[in-house]
Amino acid sequence: MIVQSLKGIGASAGIAIAKAYRLEEPELVVEKRVIDSIEAEIQRFTAAISQSTSELEQIKEHAFKELGEDKAAIFAAHLLVLSDPELINPIKDKITTEKVNAEFALQEVANMFIGMFESMDNEYMKERASDIRDVTKRVMSHLLGVTIPNPSMISEEVIIIAEDLTPSDTAQLNRQYVKGFTTDIGGRTSHSAIMARSLEIPAVVGTKTGTTDIENGVLVILDGLAGTVIVDPSADTVKEYEEKKATYEAKKAEWAKLVNEPTVSKDGQHVELAANIGTPEDVKGVLENGGEGVGLYRTEFLYMGRTQLPTEEEQFDAYKSVLERMEGKPVVVRTLDIGGDKELPYLDLPKEMNPFLGFRAIRLCLEMQDMFRIQLRALLRAGVYGNLKIMFPMIATLDEFRSAKGILEEEKQKLLFEGQQVVEKIELGIMVEIPSTAVLADQFAKEVDFFSIGTNDLVQYSMAADRMNQRVSYLYQPYSPAILRLVKMVIDAAHAEGKWAGMCGEMAGDETAIPILLGLGLDEFSMSATSILKVRSQILRLSKTEMKNLAEKALQMKTTSEVIEAVKEIMK
Amino acid sequence: MIVQSLKGIGASAGIAIAKAYRLEEPELVVEKRVIDSIEAEIQRFTAAISQSTSELEQIKEHAFKELGEDKAAIFAAHLLVLSDPELINPIKDKITTEKVNAEFALQEVANMFIGMFESMDNEYMKERASDIRDVTKRVMSHLLGVTIPNPSMISEEVIIIAEDLTPSDTAQLNRQYVKGFTTDIGGRTSHSAIMARSLEIPAVVGTKTGTTDIENGVLVILDGLAGTVIVDPSADTVKEYEEKKATYEAKKAEWAKLVNEPTVSKDGQHVELAANIGTPEDVKGVLENGGEGVGLYRTEFLYMGRTQLPTEEEQFDAYKSVLERMEGKPVVVRTLDIGGDKELPYLDLPKEMNPFLGFRAIRLCLEMQDMFRIQLRALLRAGVYGNLKIMFPMIATLDEFRSAKGILEEEKQKLLFEGQQVVEKIELGIMVEIPSTAVLADQFAKEVDFFSIGTNDLVQYSMAADRMNQRVSYLYQPYSPAILRLVKMVIDAAHAEGKWAGMCGEMAGDETAIPILLGLGLDEFSMSATSILKVRSQILRLSKTEMKNLAEKALQMKTTSEVIEAVKEIMK
Repeated sequence: MIVQSLKGIGASAGIAIAKAYRLEEPELVVEKRVIDSIEAEIQRFTAAISQSTSELEQIKEHAFKELGEDKAAIFAAHLLVLSDPELINPIKDKITTEKVNAEFALQEVANMFIGMFESMDNEYMKERASDIRDVTKRVMSHLLGVTIPNPSMISEEVIIIAEDLTPSDTAQLNRQYVKGFTTDIGGRTSHSAIMARSLEIPAVVGTKTGTTDIENGVLVILDGLAGTVIVDPSADTVKEYEEKKATYEAKKAEWAKLVNEPTVSKDGQHVELAANIGTPEDVKGVLENGGEGVGLYRTEFLYMGRTQLPTEEEQFDAYKSVLERMEGKPVVVRTLDIGGDKELPYLDLPKEMNPFLGFRAIRLCLEMQDMFRIQLRALLRAGVYGNLKIMFPMIATLDEFRSAKGILEEEKQKLLFEGQQVVEKIELGIMVEIPSTAVLADQFAKEVDFFSIGTNDLVQYSMAADRMNQRVSYLYQPYSPAILRLVKMVIDAAHAEGKWAGMCGEMAGDETAIPILLGLGLDEFSMSATSILKVRSQILRLSKTEMKNLAEKALQMKTTSEVIEAVKEIMK
Repeated sequence: MIVQSLKGIGASAGIAIAKAYRLEEPELVVEKRVIDSIEAEIQRFTAAISQSTSELEQIKEHAFKELGEDKAAIFAAHLLVLSDPELINPIKDKITTEKVNAEFALQEVANMFIGMFESMDNEYMKERASDIRDVTKRVMSHLLGVTIPNPSMISEEVIIIAEDLTPSDTAQLNRQYVKGFTTDIGGRTSHSAIMARSLEIPAVVGTKTGTTDIENGVLVILDGLAGTVIVDPSADTVKEYEEKKATYEAKKAEWAKLVNEPTVSKDGQHVELAANIGTPEDVKGVLENGGEGVGLYRTEFLYMGRTQLPTEEEQFDAYKSVLERMEGKPVVVRTLDIGGDKELPYLDLPKEMNPFLGFRAIRLCLEMQDMFRIQLRALLRAGVYGNLKIMFPMIATLDEFRSAKGILEEEKQKLLFEGQQVVEKIELGIMVEIPSTAVLADQFAKEVDFFSIGTNDLVQYSMAADRMNQRVSYLYQPYSPAILRLVKMVIDAAHAEGKWAGMCGEMAGDETAIPILLGLGLDEFSMSATSILKVRSQILRLSKTEMKNLAEKALQMKTTSEVIEAVKEIMK
C-alpha cells in the first residue's frame, strides 16, 4: 500500500490524527416541470422556507455561543434573505403565473439576483450574492429532499476534507469532534485559515487535491506545523506522529505556564505583548492567552452588518466594556478605518478605481466629521473606565494628525461643558502604515505620543503591491531590508523623543520577524491572542543585544532571501 | 458695463486676446417614424455614413500633419467604427424589419452598444463606448441635416469656449487661428490641458461657468499664466494685457535664445535637461526646444491602438529612428510599462481591484517573457544607431532587476550567435517609483548604472493616494519633506557609487521643485519638451550652493506648506 502525503500551507499549528470526513456539496439537479396545483406548490415552497429558517436559527445560535456575535451576524444576514419579499414574492409569482415547479422558480429568480449583484463590482453587493447563493442551496436541498452536509451534527472525531470552507461551514464546527481540517484552496490569510487559528484547531490549506485524493473514513494525519497531510498512514507513521503530537502539546503546555509571566528577553529587556481585537467578546481570549494589553482594537465591527451608524451610547458601551474587562491594562483603540474595500452600505461611498489608495480611514473621518465626532465622544467618555489610548489610521501628513487632534480637543471641551465625565489625560498616537509617514517619523514623533506600525498596509504601499492580488503576491515581503529600514526609522524616531513604538500588523507575531524586531528595539508587539504565548516563549530565549547585531546586518542586506537566511542561521 | 472675470486653472502658459468662439454641441432630436420605402431609408443611411467617412478622413489627415501619428490614430479608430458590420448591420436590419427611420435605428443600436461597453468597467471598452458616441453624433448630424461644429474650418483668430474638448476637437485645432481655449471642466493633467501645452497655445481649464458666461463673438482675454479669463474687457484692460503679452513673448524669445546653450547654474554647475517622448515624431520638438537628450521614451505607444503586439522589426524601426534623429544625444528607453490601468485589449489581462498596485510593467514583462524578449532584441539591435540607455519600470526588488538584466544578456548572446549587429556596451538603469526602492537605493546603486525617479508614481505610493482620485488629491504632495527625503536617498546613493540620477516625473519641470532638486544634486531633469527652455532660464539664475542650503532646510521641515513658503521666499 502506498502511503500518500499531500503538501499544503500550514494555516494553524498542531497535529491531528482522525478519520476523514468529506464535506461535500451535493449535486442539486433542477428540472423544469409544469405543475397541477399552484396552491400545493406554493405550500411546498413555504415549507422549505420554514425548514431552512429553523435550521439557520439553530446554526446562528451555535455560532453565537462558539464564535461570538460578529460571526453569528452572517446567519442573521441569511435569515434576512429568507424573509425578503423582494426575493420570495417573485418566486411565488413565477410559480403562479408560469405554473412551474418551486425548484425551477427558485433557481431562476435566485440566479437572476445573483447575476445582478455579482456584476455590480461592489464588495457589499457581491457578498449579498454569496448570501443568496448559500440560502438558495439550503432551500433547494429541502425542496429536493437532498441532505446537505451539516457539520454541526458531526458526533465522532474527524478531520474535515473540503474544497473550501464557507463562513457557514466554519461557524458550525464543533471543536469537540472536529480535530482539524484541510482545504484544496486558500492561503495563510484566507477566511478558513484565520478561523482555524481563532478556533485553535490544526489546519492545512491549499493542498489542491485533498478532495480528490482522500476518501471518506480513511485515517488521516494532519500536520499544521509542516503543512502536510498523510493519507492512510502505516502504524509506524501513526506512532511517529503521536509522538510529535505529544511533543507539540507538551510545548503548548509549557507555553501555557507563561500566561502570567512578563515578556523578558534572555538579557533582561522587557517588551509588551498585546493582542488585536475586534469586539468586546474577544477580551476573554486576550486574558486567557496572557495578553499584556490590547494593541489594536478595530472599531469597524461596531459599524458593520447594520443599516445605520452606531449611536454614541452603543459605542460608549462597547468601549467601556473592553476597558473594564482589561482591568487597567492598556487598550489602544483605532478610530474608524472604513472606506476603500471596507464598505458601509449605508454611507453610500462612491466606487473607486484603486480603493487601497483611496478615500478611507482618517481621510474619510476628517470629511464626515459628524460621524467621527460621535466616535470620539464615546471614546472620551469611556476612557474613564480604564487605560485608553487612541490612534488614528492612515495618517499621511502632520496636518491630518493635527486636525484629528483638534477635533478630539473640541469634543472634550463640549463634553466638559455638558457636565459629562471624560478621561483627563489620554495618549494620542498614529498608525504608521503609509511610507511617507515612516520616512518623516522624526517630525511626527515631536507631536504624537506613540506609533503603531501597521505592517500589512506598510508593506503593501512600500512595495506598491496589492496584498490581496495573487499575481503580485511575491512582492509582499515584510522581511525586505527596505521594510526593516522603514521600521527602524519609526522606532528610532519614537525613542529619540522618549515615546514608544508598537506594531500591530501580521509581522508582529511572525516567528522570523520577531528576532529582528526585538533587535530594532520595538516596544510593543500586538498580534492574534492565540500567538501570544508562543511569541513570549520565543522572546524568553533571545538576547536583545545579539538580535541588535542581527538587525544591523539585516539592514545592510540586499534582498529578502538574505534576511530570511540570516534569521534561520541564528535560530538554529 | 461690468467687466467680468473668470478664474480657472492655468493649463498652458501665455496670453491670448481674441473673439470668443463657442464650440457648442448641437441638440440632435430623434423622432421615431414609420417609413414607406426601406430601400430609400437604407440609402439615406448609407449616404450619411459616406459623408461621415470622408469628413473623418480629412480630420485624420489634418491631425496627422499637425499632431503626429498617435493623435491621428483616434480617427483611424473612428473610421473603424464606421465600417464595423457588427454596428452597421443591426441598424440596417432594424430599418428593414421594423420599418423605422434611420435616425431612430441608429440611436437605438448605438445606445445599446454604448450602454453595454460602458457598463463593462474596463477602460478599453469605455473608450470604445466613447468612440461610438462620437461617431454616432457625426452620422446623426448628417441624417438630420444639422451642422456639427468643425473646429478645423475656423478661419479667423478666436479663443475657443467649450465645456470640454474631446480628442477629436483638439485634433482639429489649427494653431494659425485658434489662439487659446478655455473649458468649464478639467485640471492641469486633463487631456485638453496636456494637448494645449503640446500645441503651445494658452489655455485656462476648469472655469466652471465659461460656457454660461461668455457669448459668441465677444472679446476675451485669456491669461494662461494666471488662470484668468476676462470677458468683454475695457480698452485699458486690453492695453494692459497687450503689454503683458508682449512681456511674456519677449521672455519666450529670450528663452528661445537658450536653445543651443548648456544648462549651467549661476555658480557654474552643469545639469542635463532632457525630454519625455512617446513617439519618434516627438523628437522634432525635443531638438527645437534645446533638449540635451531624451530622459524617458515611453514605448507603450508602440503597443497601443492595435490589435496585436508590434513585431521586432516595427520596434527596431521606431527605436532606430529616435536614436538617429537624436544624433548621439542620450536616449533613455523605458521598457514596456503596461498593465493596471493601461490595458492592451489583445493581451486580455484580468481585471484587478487596485490596478495601480497590480500586475504591470516589469512584473508583467518578467512573466510574459516572449513579449519582453522581442522588445529587448529590438533595442539591442537599434542601440547601434545612437546613444541608447535602457531602464526598467516599477522595479521593487533587486531580484527583479537581476532577472531583467539576465534576460537582456541572454538575448544579446542569441543575437550575436545569429550574426546580428548589437550595441556593445549599454547603460542599464531603473525607474525609482516604488518607495521601498528609494529606501534601498544604496544597495541598488551597486548594480544599476543609473536611476530615473518617476515622481508621479513615487508620490502616489509614498502617500498611499491614487493620483487620479479627486477625493484624495490633497495628498498628492510632491514637495512633502518625506518625498524630498526619498529623492535625496536616491541621488546620494547614485553619487556614492559614481552613478547618475535623473527624474522623469512632472516634478522635474516644476518651477517650485527645481530649486530644491538642483540643491539635492539631481543630474538630469526630464520633462515635456516645451518646458525645457523655461527651466533652463530658471536654472541659469540659481546658485547650486545656495539651493543646497535651501534643500537641507526643506528636508527638516514638517509639512508641504512650509516647503512651498521657503521656496517662495528664496525665489522672490
